[in-house]
Amino acid sequence: MAKGFKKRIKQENTQNSGFGSRASGRFINKDGLPNVRRRGVNVLNSLSWYHTMLNLSSFRFITYLVVMYILINLVFALIYYLIGVEHLTGIDKSDPMNEFIDVFFFSSQTFTTVGYGRIAPVGFLASLIATFEAFLGLLTFAIATGLFYGRFSRPRAYLKFSDVAVIAPFQDASALMFRLAPYKNNALTDADVTLSTAIEINEGDNNLKTNFYRLETQLSKINTLALNWTVVHKIDENSPFYGFTGDDFKNINIEIIIHVRAFDEVFSNTVVQRSSYVSREIIYGAKFVPMYYPDNDKDSTVLDLDKINDYEKAEIPVFDNEKA
Amino acid sequence: MAKGFKKRIKQENTQNSGFGSRASGRFINKDGLPNVRRRGVNVLNSLSWYHTMLNLSSFRFITYLVVMYILINLVFALIYYLIGVEHLTGIDKSDPMNEFIDVFFFSSQTFTTVGYGRIAPVGFLASLIATFEAFLGLLTFAIATGLFYGRFSRPRAYLKFSDVAVIAPFQDASALMFRLAPYKNNALTDADVTLSTAIEINEGDNNLKTNFYRLETQLSKINTLALNWTVVHKIDENSPFYGFTGDDFKNINIEIIIHVRAFDEVFSNTVVQRSSYVSREIIYGAKFVPMYYPDNDKDSTVLDLDKINDYEKAEIPVFDNEKA
Amino acid sequence: MAKGFKKRIKQENTQNSGFGSRASGRFINKDGLPNVRRRGVNVLNSLSWYHTMLNLSSFRFITYLVVMYILINLVFALIYYLIGVEHLTGIDKSDPMNEFIDVFFFSSQTFTTVGYGRIAPVGFLASLIATFEAFLGLLTFAIATGLFYGRFSRPRAYLKFSDVAVIAPFQDASALMFRLAPYKNNALTDADVTLSTAIEINEGDNNLKTNFYRLETQLSKINTLALNWTVVHKIDENSPFYGFTGDDFKNINIEIIIHVRAFDEVFSNTVVQRSSYVSREIIYGAKFVPMYYPDNDKDSTVLDLDKINDYEKAEIPVFDNEKA
Amino acid sequence: MAKGFKKRIKQENTQNSGFGSRASGRFINKDGLPNVRRRGVNVLNSLSWYHTMLNLSSFRFITYLVVMYILINLVFALIYYLIGVEHLTGIDKSDPMNEFIDVFFFSSQTFTTVGYGRIAPVGFLASLIATFEAFLGLLTFAIATGLFYGRFSRPRAYLKFSDVAVIAPFQDASALMFRLAPYKNNALTDADVTLSTAIEINEGDNNLKTNFYRLETQLSKINTLALNWTVVHKIDENSPFYGFTGDDFKNINIEIIIHVRAFDEVFSNTVVQRSSYVSREIIYGAKFVPMYYPDNDKDSTVLDLDKINDYEKAEIPVFDNEKA
Repeated sequence: MAKGFKKRIKQENTQNSGFGSRASGRFINKDGLPNVRRRGVNVLNSLSWYHTMLNLSSFRFITYLVVMYILINLVFALIYYLIGVEHLTGIDKSDPMNEFIDVFFFSSQTFTTVGYGRIAPVGFLASLIATFEAFLGLLTFAIATGLFYGRFSRPRAYLKFSDVAVIAPFQDASALMFRLAPYKNNALTDADVTLSTAIEINEGDNNLKTNFYRLETQLSKINTLALNWTVVHKIDENSPFYGFTGDDFKNINIEIIIHVRAFDEVFSNTVVQRSSYVSREIIYGAKFVPMYYPDNDKDSTVLDLDKINDYEKAEIPVFDNEKA
Repeated sequence: MAKGFKKRIKQENTQNSGFGSRASGRFINKDGLPNVRRRGVNVLNSLSWYHTMLNLSSFRFITYLVVMYILINLVFALIYYLIGVEHLTGIDKSDPMNEFIDVFFFSSQTFTTVGYGRIAPVGFLASLIATFEAFLGLLTFAIATGLFYGRFSRPRAYLKFSDVAVIAPFQDASALMFRLAPYKNNALTDADVTLSTAIEINEGDNNLKTNFYRLETQLSKINTLALNWTVVHKIDENSPFYGFTGDDFKNINIEIIIHVRAFDEVFSNTVVQRSSYVSREIIYGAKFVPMYYPDNDKDSTVLDLDKINDYEKAEIPVFDNEKA
Repeated sequence: MAKGFKKRIKQENTQNSGFGSRASGRFINKDGLPNVRRRGVNVLNSLSWYHTMLNLSSFRFITYLVVMYILINLVFALIYYLIGVEHLTGIDKSDPMNEFIDVFFFSSQTFTTVGYGRIAPVGFLASLIATFEAFLGLLTFAIATGLFYGRFSRPRAYLKFSDVAVIAPFQDASALMFRLAPYKNNALTDADVTLSTAIEINEGDNNLKTNFYRLETQLSKINTLALNWTVVHKIDENSPFYGFTGDDFKNINIEIIIHVRAFDEVFSNTVVQRSSYVSREIIYGAKFVPMYYPDNDKDSTVLDLDKINDYEKAEIPVFDNEKA
Repeated sequence: MAKGFKKRIKQENTQNSGFGSRASGRFINKDGLPNVRRRGVNVLNSLSWYHTMLNLSSFRFITYLVVMYILINLVFALIYYLIGVEHLTGIDKSDPMNEFIDVFFFSSQTFTTVGYGRIAPVGFLASLIATFEAFLGLLTFAIATGLFYGRFSRPRAYLKFSDVAVIAPFQDASALMFRLAPYKNNALTDADVTLSTAIEINEGDNNLKTNFYRLETQLSKINTLALNWTVVHKIDENSPFYGFTGDDFKNINIEIIIHVRAFDEVFSNTVVQRSSYVSREIIYGAKFVPMYYPDNDKDSTVLDLDKINDYEKAEIPVFDNEKA
């Protein structure tokens, strides 16, 4: 990160960001997770496997399941093979390879509880293993059922944020703005947003320190989150950005941290989403263009999500920067 | 929508409706979902398939499951058929049709893991496909289990709203009233209601604009929602409807937006339900007749849900309209 | 219910009980459900079958499952029988009864997907029916899985209330008291209680009307609900019971409505429980005896749930009754 | 427990701890559960089996499942054996032991619905029992599915507390401090902490009594709980510990009760965790050393969980103790 900021900010920095002044780098990643690495706890302990399974992409999740299925069957096939194929009826004993193939399929037919019976256990040991493989199979699918349900019932906000925030003219001054919109057929109500910012301050002698400030918004709650929501932080005397020039926004390390909370009426659950903008994602002197409009028949409203990043140049009144 | 309203309303319009003044048409549909269409996101991305599955009617949900079941079996039947029926034992090889029928049923017996074994795979390829079909079958039913649970455990309020709202005489003035009642054997407590209204204003030169106002209610919370609840918004100086005549209610585009929230004691979860009334659903000069009464033995109370829409004519005092 | 009460109560009655003054009988049953019957909605619509399934006793729930299992198998057995046993292999065709028994067991082996294969379908029609029976079987167990999970994961408070409430001497006056205690190994914190009362008032001319009052409690929140909690409503000038004599408590129709809410740390969910006391369940002039004590080693506390109803006679100071 | 404390504490003790002054021993165990034993309710009634199943260790849970599986199969094997092995096809009748082994495996193949069919029921009675065993098997795995899901979807905070609390110099006085940190890949936000303390007071004549006090913290809420959180209770005039010397902290029975609450963004659920420190776990005159630092590239922050218990000696200013 570059050189810090020396000007004095009148606002007191908040202590409850959860990050200390010695923390470094981006605090909240674009996907909303904190940019923190943990050390000193063994791997098994540091992962909640359920949280991990819930966060996997669908593709990787399915791949894991398939790989596990094959591995388990290989292990059991090996066990049956070592016990001896004579404990199984219906095995093709023409050569060892065919034997192994048949015990592998016997294993899968047992694990999935299909049990055609063309191949079936006759001896004690093979029967015993099969008894446990079928049991393990059912427990495995019990767990898979839970994971599937956990994955798709997991409450999520499904909000799209604009790629950038802008500093736009607002009332007689300027304001930091970004916007967000729901992009799925969930029904969000009672949405609220909390904004804070981390600003790197140069305390002299190359001594960099990060301060945290809460940012006031013009409107922190809305009733129905069905159209886009342009969140507005007015840059007035109460803003830590008061007096910042376009260059300041470019050169000082700033991070805007966003926390949105809403009520999903389908799940009857509170959903949250976080995101952040850093200096390079803030455009000075721009304003968003509208992204919703009445439809042709004027009997409903259309939200055009492709326009979420559309902005145009907008002059920031000069007196605002001079005054500081 | 028709011509707007010119009179001045003293109340400030609220900014946090989530709908802008350029939005058009009904805002909240009768079923509580916002009347907004999304554009610019590809279909796959714009649907949360889980939300979609939860919102399907039971009939369509079951139909989808059955159709998918048949399709999957047809696909696998085709695969087994192409591999060659000689890799399956017990197939009726009298003619190609019978062969296909038998591989279709073999597929279904594998997918459901019934696995009678009358037809069973013997070759490597057919066994391999069957191995994966059984696996797929179990995962499919794992997902179905989650969907069923998601569907019936989904918290819902089960509230019936009166079809119309009425403007009834109330105290020394008038009030907007509608009523709602629980119609299922769920146990709702701590219910609260939030009312707001959208009024289309004519700003001159055919320039229509929609303003939003919050409506105060006489009682916004009740402890036990077991009988009907008549929600009352008194039309006094603090109401945006102050001074409205019966004609105004007919001619101006008005929408009453209702948001009910309660606690379901069986699910231990908050449930919500929204609805709305537009101009044509508001009856001027009417009042509801009671819909509950003591039972014959006087030892419990009876709620007659068929009466929820019963109202009678009621004169609105004239002075109320004159004063404005 | 008997004659009403004529004395004037200074407190204003609350409007938000959810019960009107014309409601009759006990309002909240001992088990916490409102004493209201619904009329005018057809049966199918008035029951949430999921709520119903969750409220069944374990015994009845299991019985329903078993009966349904037998019925479904009988129906399918009949269908297979009508199609003709020649479409199934392995049937004992010695006589029609044996035939029916075998198709019944074939049906159950298909529905549960056991599919031994001793009996197996060969014709098109029987195979088709079996295909759907296996599918139905899996969906049925998918639903059963959801019901089981819904039943045992349903958050409940597991609180035991004392059978009676008492009017006990308290400070320089008297107080209404009852107590409650958790009786299971759940961990409740942040418990709060809300008390209200319904009092039947005689407005003259045998005109009975029920008024509702909120009752203040000495302590409405506690941090950890691990021992018993004696809820105390002091009968002072702010109580609707101010000036009530022992006879008043006996003769006037009173109902105390209790609403307890706590946080279950195992489920991480809010749980609620309601109950009520009517006149005949209120003992005038009694106080509870302690029900917890240090254990012998003085290193933990013992809660004796058998003592929850133990009270002893206690004189109510006379001046309290005189003053009114 | 040792002798009580005689000095007068100015603060009023709180009544809402949920523990009375006659309760004894540690109130909250280290794992957060209250140290209370229940008596007088029969065992079946006093355990919520679902809570019990959720609290078992994974190892014990799996062991229970396996043991139950074996027991059920033994019971059914016995039943089939008593009915007579002639009602089953494919049994090895060489000797009774082999017969029993075969019926045992038939039972397990039925219970898991594998149903190879090598052994299959032919008589009415054996078929009937098998019909119910398969049904029971499916219900059992339905329940197991629910238990697995309940176990791993159970919201938990996954917080590590420092083993000890310290009394450290703070501002111009001293403070009680301990720290906590998340150790798993869950994402906690909006964390808050509630501190209270139980102090044993000597009321004279060896009459010990426990008083409860709420402890104020410097910061009771933080936005993102990603790094460690050092909770600080300043010991000033408003603290019940005001004037305590190092010896007091050693000799008086003190218990610090901690209640942390946070929002888990993956589960979208509130999670809680409790813990406590007793006198012997409080170090007088020590302060924690930092446990997080910027990583080498300065682009993220590292949290070293192994350092959570690292503290160093720190002099408590004397005037603080004198003043009291």
